[in-house]
Amino acid sequence: MDILVENVAALLTEQGFTVGTVESATGGLISHMITSLPGSSNFYKGSVVSYSNEIKSNVVGVNGGDLTRYGAVSAVVAEQMAAGGRRLLGVDFCLSDTGIAGPGGGSPEKPVGLFYLGLSCREGTYSREYHFSGDRSTNNQTAARTALGWLKDYLSGEWIPGKLQR
Amino acid sequence: MDILVENVAALLTEQGFTVGTVESATGGLISHMITSLPGSSNFYKGSVVSYSNEIKSNVVGVNGGDLTRYGAVSAVVAEQMAAGGRRLLGVDFCLSDTGIAGPGGGSPEKPVGLFYLGLSCREGTYSREYHFSGDRSTNNQTAARTALGWLKDYLSGEWIPGKLQR
Repeated sequence: MDILVENVAALLTEQGFTVGTVESATGGLISHMITSLPGSSNFYKGSVVSYSNEIKSNVVGVNGGDLTRYGAVSAVVAEQMAAGGRRLLGVDFCLSDTGIAGPGGGSPEKPVGLFYLGLSCREGTYSREYHFSGDRSTNNQTAARTALGWLKDYLSGEWIPGKLQR
Repeated sequence: MDILVENVAALLTEQGFTVGTVESATGGLISHMITSLPGSSNFYKGSVVSYSNEIKSNVVGVNGGDLTRYGAVSAVVAEQMAAGGRRLLGVDFCLSDTGIAGPGGGSPEKPVGLFYLGLSCREGTYSREYHFSGDRSTNNQTAARTALGWLKDYLSGEWIPGKLQR
């Protein structure tokens, strides 16, 4: 069993919080990692895998103008995915990701390995930019573990929204 | 790379169809398997992982009365998940699953390993009942592969809706 998932699960259960995800590049991997843990339905409510722009806007509520203006792989969209998912799924925390896992889809402005992660909680909605350098599978695994690690940092008090970074 | 996913991807691409999933027990595994294939965004649009009854009814549109009457793990709910997902995600095919992967959650009427898979397509919406006998991970892997195999049978003409079974 995955020790990171077990630690997040223990913290969520202890504090009585629920979580959901809105995934793009990771394509359901975060959800799969969490639900591999027996009993995860006690704190995990579900996910939208918004692999297309239509699902990002029609289901999750990402602004269509922002998708055009900033592109699907952007901080703005990661934040709207997390905030929209928190509302839609009715959870205390929503994690999101949008990125270019590769091997295709990269450009000079947005190269393979560029990821934005989002986290929405009662204090607000936050995003972080990452540049991963692995292959498709490794980039997605790293993104998933980084998102779960961010939530763990919040739950363990190692990261305080608005204090240490935006 | 997974040969089953590659075969389904080739058939979908050849025939110009799109697919989405609504997952319960498998918790995003089907979506993760499909999106592990580079270029899958050409035919794969996304998923709702409806791990809670609230998400099944509020997001996917499963009837709340039917959830109470038949339970989340039932043919009726698998069919409504597939049909609701096909509408919500705007796809040609929607695969769904609901089951008891274990180790907990079983009962005499609905033992661990009971799964219902759903498939919604233009001809209608169908469900199938399975009894798997593995552990949590194996049951979910088997459910995911069986759902993808069902879609492959449709796309290759080996299964014709309404002809060989309901």
